[in-house]
Amino acid sequence: METFNAWAPLLRHLIELAAMLAFALSGVLEGARKRLDPVGVCVVAFLAAFGGGTLRDLLLDQRPFFWIRHSDYVWGILGLSVCALLFMRQRHFEPTERAIQIPDAIGLGLFTAVGVDTAQALGMPSLIAVLMGVITGVFGGVLRDIVCNEIPKAFNDHRPYAVCAFAGAWLYLGLRNGQADETTALVACVLLTAGLRGLAVWRNWQLPGWRH
Amino acid sequence: METFNAWAPLLRHLIELAAMLAFALSGVLEGARKRLDPVGVCVVAFLAAFGGGTLRDLLLDQRPFFWIRHSDYVWGILGLSVCALLFMRQRHFEPTERAIQIPDAIGLGLFTAVGVDTAQALGMPSLIAVLMGVITGVFGGVLRDIVCNEIPKAFNDHRPYAVCAFAGAWLYLGLRNGQADETTALVACVLLTAGLRGLAVWRNWQLPGWRH
Amino acid sequence: METFNAWAPLLRHLIELAAMLAFALSGVLEGARKRLDPVGVCVVAFLAAFGGGTLRDLLLDQRPFFWIRHSDYVWGILGLSVCALLFMRQRHFEPTERAIQIPDAIGLGLFTAVGVDTAQALGMPSLIAVLMGVITGVFGGVLRDIVCNEIPKAFNDHRPYAVCAFAGAWLYLGLRNGQADETTALVACVLLTAGLRGLAVWRNWQLPGWRH
Repeated sequence: METFNAWAPLLRHLIELAAMLAFALSGVLEGARKRLDPVGVCVVAFLAAFGGGTLRDLLLDQRPFFWIRHSDYVWGILGLSVCALLFMRQRHFEPTERAIQIPDAIGLGLFTAVGVDTAQALGMPSLIAVLMGVITGVFGGVLRDIVCNEIPKAFNDHRPYAVCAFAGAWLYLGLRNGQADETTALVACVLLTAGLRGLAVWRNWQLPGWRH
Repeated sequence: METFNAWAPLLRHLIELAAMLAFALSGVLEGARKRLDPVGVCVVAFLAAFGGGTLRDLLLDQRPFFWIRHSDYVWGILGLSVCALLFMRQRHFEPTERAIQIPDAIGLGLFTAVGVDTAQALGMPSLIAVLMGVITGVFGGVLRDIVCNEIPKAFNDHRPYAVCAFAGAWLYLGLRNGQADETTALVACVLLTAGLRGLAVWRNWQLPGWRH
Repeated sequence: METFNAWAPLLRHLIELAAMLAFALSGVLEGARKRLDPVGVCVVAFLAAFGGGTLRDLLLDQRPFFWIRHSDYVWGILGLSVCALLFMRQRHFEPTERAIQIPDAIGLGLFTAVGVDTAQALGMPSLIAVLMGVITGVFGGVLRDIVCNEIPKAFNDHRPYAVCAFAGAWLYLGLRNGQADETTALVACVLLTAGLRGLAVWRNWQLPGWRH
C-alpha cells in the first residue's frame, strides 16, 4: 500500500488525461459527423472534455476552473482537434467509435469520482454530492449534443450511462461514511462506475422505456 | 389579517409545492412525448422545476441554490419521474396536459413573484428586477425545451406567457414603490400573473405576429 | 494624439453602441426568420447582444453584468425589437442581412478587444485571455442559434469568424507584452479582427473542411 500511495498521483494523472482525451475525441467525432468546421470541432471537443467539470464548478461556485488553472490542457485539445482534421477520414469513424468506449467508461468513472469527492469536501448533502458526481461525468456529453443540435444521447438512448455514475457515486459516499479513506473510496467509485458501464455496453443492457 | 398572516407561510409553501409539481410534471410530459429514457425524464423534470430559479441565482450570484438547500425536493422530483414512468400511459397525456394549465399558471405567478422579490431585495434596478421575475417564471420551461431539442414554446407559440409575468412583476414593483407591504405586493403579483395567464388560455389570446 | 485621446471615450462608446445594435439586429433577423413571437424576438436579440459578455463574466466571476449596470441598454433592445416587429417586412430581410455585415464585423472586433482586455487585467494566462476575447465576440451568436434550435453558424458555415477574433486577440496580447499602451493594443485588435472578417466576407474565404 505504501508503494501504491507513492504511485497514486501519477496513476491518477494518467487516467485523468486518458479520460479527458476520450471525452475530447468523442466531441471531435460528433463534430465530424455533423460536418462542423474546425472552430466548431474545437469547441465541441472542449465542451465534451471540460463541460461537465465546469458546470459543476459553476453550480458549486468554485474558481478558478480546471482548464483555467491548466491552460496547457486547452492547447492539447486544440492540437487534438487539428490533428483529427488533418488525419481523420470517414472510414476511421466506425472503428474509432468502438475503441472509444473503453476510455469513455473509465473517464465516466473518474470524472464521477472527482465530482462527488469535490462536492463532499464542500459539505454538500448526500444527494447533491451524488448529483454533482453525475453532472461532472455526464454533462460534458450533454453540452456536446446540445451544441450539435441533438437530444443528448445520455437522455434518450436507453442504455445505462448516468445510472452507472449514480451507483458509483453512492458507493463512494457509503464508503466514506463507513470510515474508508479517500483513496479507497475513489478507486471503488471508479471501478464500480466504469465496470457497470462496461458491462452495460458488453451485455447491451437497456433501461426500461415508456409503456403504451 | 392577523389570522391570515399566521397561515400565510403554510399557504405559500403549499402553493410553491404545487407550482414545482406542475412544472416538474410539464417536464415529465415533454420527456415522455420525446420518448426519453428514465434518466432524461428526471433531468428534464428537474430543469423545468428548478431551472428558472437556478438561472436567476446564477445571474444574481446567490448561493446556495434552492434545490441545494432543500435536497428533499430533488428526491420528490426523482420519485415523481419514476412514478410517471411506472404508471403513465399514452392515453393519460392529453387530459394531463389540459389539467396542468391551472397549476402551471399559478406556478408562473408564484415563481415570478419570488423572482422579482429576490432581485428587488438585492437593490437591482426596476427593469432588471422585473426581468429576474420573468426569468424565474419562464426559463424552467425554456431550458426544458432546449434540452428536448425544440424551439422554446414560450418564444414561438404566440400565446401570452412571459408577457403575463412581465405585467405581474411591474405591478409588484409599483405597489412596493407605493409603500405597500411585501405580502400585499406578492399576492397581487401572483393574482395578476396567474389571472392574465388563465384568461389568455381561456379566451385563446394571441400575441401579434410578423406581417408580410 | 492629444485631440484623439479627448475624443476616444466618445468614439469607443459610439462604436460599442453600433456593435450592440448590430448584434441585436442579427438576433431580430434570426427570430423573424424562425417566426418567433415578440417575446422570443426580444430574448434572442438580447442573447445576441449581451450573451457573449455575460458568459465571459460568468466564467471569470465578474459582477455585476454589463446589462445590469446599464439597464437603459436593455430598454434599447426591447424598443428595437418592438420597432422591428412593427415596421419590418419579409422584403426587408435580404438587404438588412447584407448591410449588417459591416457593423457585425466591427462589433466582433470591439467585443473581442473588450473581452481579452478584461481577462488580461485579471491576470489570466495568455491562452485563456484570448479565449475570453473570442467567447465575448462569438458566443452571443452561438446562444442565439442554440435558442433558435440550429447548429451555431459560427461552428459550421466554414467562413472565418472566430478565427479572426482569435488572431486579433493574440495581436492584442503581443502588443501589450511588447510594452504598447492599452489604447494602441485595443485599436490594433479591433482593426485586425474587423479587417480580417471584412476580407473574409469580401473574398469569400473558406476554412478547410473534412476530407473523405
